[in-house]
Amino acid sequence: MHFAREEYLERIARARAAMERAGIELLVTVDPSNMGWLTGYDGWSFYTPQAVLLALDGDPVWWGRGIDAPGARRTVFMEDHAQSVVGYSDDWVQNPPRHAAEELARLIDERGWGGLRIGVEMDNYYYSATMHHRLVAGLPRARFLDATGLVNWCRAVKSSAEIEMIRRAARIVEAMHERILAVAEPGMPKNVLVAEIQHQGTLGAKGYWGDYPAIVPMTPSGLDATAAHLTWDDRPLRRGEATFFEIAGVHCRYHCPQSRTLFFGPPPKHYRQAERAVLAGLEAGMSAARPGASCEDVAAAFYAALAEHGFSKDSRCGYSIGMSYPPDWGERTMSFRWGDKTVLRPGMVFHFMPALWLDDGGLEISEPIVITEDGAERLTHTPQELFVK
Amino acid sequence: MHFAREEYLERIARARAAMERAGIELLVTVDPSNMGWLTGYDGWSFYTPQAVLLALDGDPVWWGRGIDAPGARRTVFMEDHAQSVVGYSDDWVQNPPRHAAEELARLIDERGWGGLRIGVEMDNYYYSATMHHRLVAGLPRARFLDATGLVNWCRAVKSSAEIEMIRRAARIVEAMHERILAVAEPGMPKNVLVAEIQHQGTLGAKGYWGDYPAIVPMTPSGLDATAAHLTWDDRPLRRGEATFFEIAGVHCRYHCPQSRTLFFGPPPKHYRQAERAVLAGLEAGMSAARPGASCEDVAAAFYAALAEHGFSKDSRCGYSIGMSYPPDWGERTMSFRWGDKTVLRPGMVFHFMPALWLDDGGLEISEPIVITEDGAERLTHTPQELFVK
Repeated sequence: MHFAREEYLERIARARAAMERAGIELLVTVDPSNMGWLTGYDGWSFYTPQAVLLALDGDPVWWGRGIDAPGARRTVFMEDHAQSVVGYSDDWVQNPPRHAAEELARLIDERGWGGLRIGVEMDNYYYSATMHHRLVAGLPRARFLDATGLVNWCRAVKSSAEIEMIRRAARIVEAMHERILAVAEPGMPKNVLVAEIQHQGTLGAKGYWGDYPAIVPMTPSGLDATAAHLTWDDRPLRRGEATFFEIAGVHCRYHCPQSRTLFFGPPPKHYRQAERAVLAGLEAGMSAARPGASCEDVAAAFYAALAEHGFSKDSRCGYSIGMSYPPDWGERTMSFRWGDKTVLRPGMVFHFMPALWLDDGGLEISEPIVITEDGAERLTHTPQELFVK
Repeated sequence: MHFAREEYLERIARARAAMERAGIELLVTVDPSNMGWLTGYDGWSFYTPQAVLLALDGDPVWWGRGIDAPGARRTVFMEDHAQSVVGYSDDWVQNPPRHAAEELARLIDERGWGGLRIGVEMDNYYYSATMHHRLVAGLPRARFLDATGLVNWCRAVKSSAEIEMIRRAARIVEAMHERILAVAEPGMPKNVLVAEIQHQGTLGAKGYWGDYPAIVPMTPSGLDATAAHLTWDDRPLRRGEATFFEIAGVHCRYHCPQSRTLFFGPPPKHYRQAERAVLAGLEAGMSAARPGASCEDVAAAFYAALAEHGFSKDSRCGYSIGMSYPPDWGERTMSFRWGDKTVLRPGMVFHFMPALWLDDGGLEISEPIVITEDGAERLTHTPQELFVK
């Protein structure tokens, strides 16, 4: 267990308060981050149906594939495993027309929850349309409510123990950027550089072991960097080209993402202009980020500084981070963008990510930040500049 | 493009034949493997809604987030990008109550497909209950049919070009197991060993670069190995303990998974018994695997040999593999298990995975295999044994 039992109980209390506000009597959370945050469960088992069931009293219940139940018993905080860990048989795995949601409905009914108002995460990677339809069909007395994001929002303000995890991840991502600067050189195949990045990421840093990131390293060069999410191959790094590195250090599933851009040779003038614009925007956004301000305020300050330097950006420039599993390391709650009126509070953690896509490449200089009592703090000490080698 | 244009056209013809058999006039495929198989698209963008639309004539259409459209233009085989690559604006990204499926419905209607019989992958990680509901609401004239697995099944028999990709991935996984044997030693923290495995996996082997696996290395030791899918931390490898390594070499998204088990010191008698049982089971299964036999026949031969050695196993002992994206490297079609009557054909590729969970650990010795004209061929040359060091 990465956190004290008391912390899990506090999280559950927070989730139950949110359930009561939403009129939900039983929460079925399938998001692996939410499952882990509420119970401690940690395993790469989310490719088969699984969930944590949380009623308004009693321990949460982990439900999943039978062969994963031993992993649950070894990672969850709950102690009465006979009641709180339930596995289903392997016949239910990837074996249509059967679907494990039928088993889940049976369990919910068996526990006496079949007639409740049940919250489900309608818009989640791990809650397919079929899973919903089978669950609804199996629980004719239940009333279903959309609980997408309910637990994610409970996770928005981090405990000091969680922030410590992210600070450890910050040490790791710093080491990853140092490794890039140390080993990258023109002619090096991209996959060789990525191998070095992953090696450092999993080794960790300062005595903190590295966990797997919810997104693989993004490392596009040159024109490929005009595209946001292409992954690597073996084409070599080249002089006169920019490569950006959107990577995360991870410790105990807590992520600290950070991006930097590396240019081989003297960067063209427009890269330097973009660098000045992004740095001015980061500074403006950091000044605006404080308790009481909104996510939109940070975005507005950033966009205004960018505009002063002759640049503009359409997409959001930051998002909430914390505990995560593939395929996304964002929390899918708050974003720094127009219209997001969420009020900042101490303990919120963001990836402030003002990527600029240029005609001939991309520039990313991004910062993980934590909202403090009176402002915002950068979580890393990586030099804030366009790297040139 | 990793394959010739003609191969994409042949795949599309195969998918259209399956659509016609199922009475589907427009296929909306969201599975990243299916999207890539049909068009060549390759990017880590599946954490926001995206799809490939395939009507009964014309080019397929890639639809996704605007900032990913440049990545689509750089990877798909289609040439008329104005028609075949469509991006949506960033306001639709993780910004409820809006959902990008509303944009998808608009596009389908705009193309004149709004009144068709539309096949959607109801049970897919990337097709949430909300995505389905919004799509249905936005296309009141359409009739929706479940197309889960439709393209996956088209992928079951691999082309020679695809098998070549898997053979390259096989060279990579061999090198990964060699690296494990070379560097693993008692006292080594698990994450340090995983860093070495990932490093080799991404470096690749024999001149073939390594792509990212759809599942991170599974490397549990001792009692943790009684659980199937726990990931690593920094606890050290220990003498007198078994560690199993369920890993894959990957090249151009094609996976070659393979498992081996390493014991430090002399293995206890029951590990040697389990080894004999698994090897006998593998041999029996390989003898049964040939065109005309069924998936169940392979499982039956394996289970019978296992029983002769006093072991039994509940879960499936193999599954179809090929192109894949997280969170699963299986194709989610055929499995070696009771009741799967799928008839084997040359060009099908499986991970024959007879894992045994013992009371005090686990034993995995697994083989990627391809069905040939008259039997089955192992794809790797990794020694088939319990590794002891």
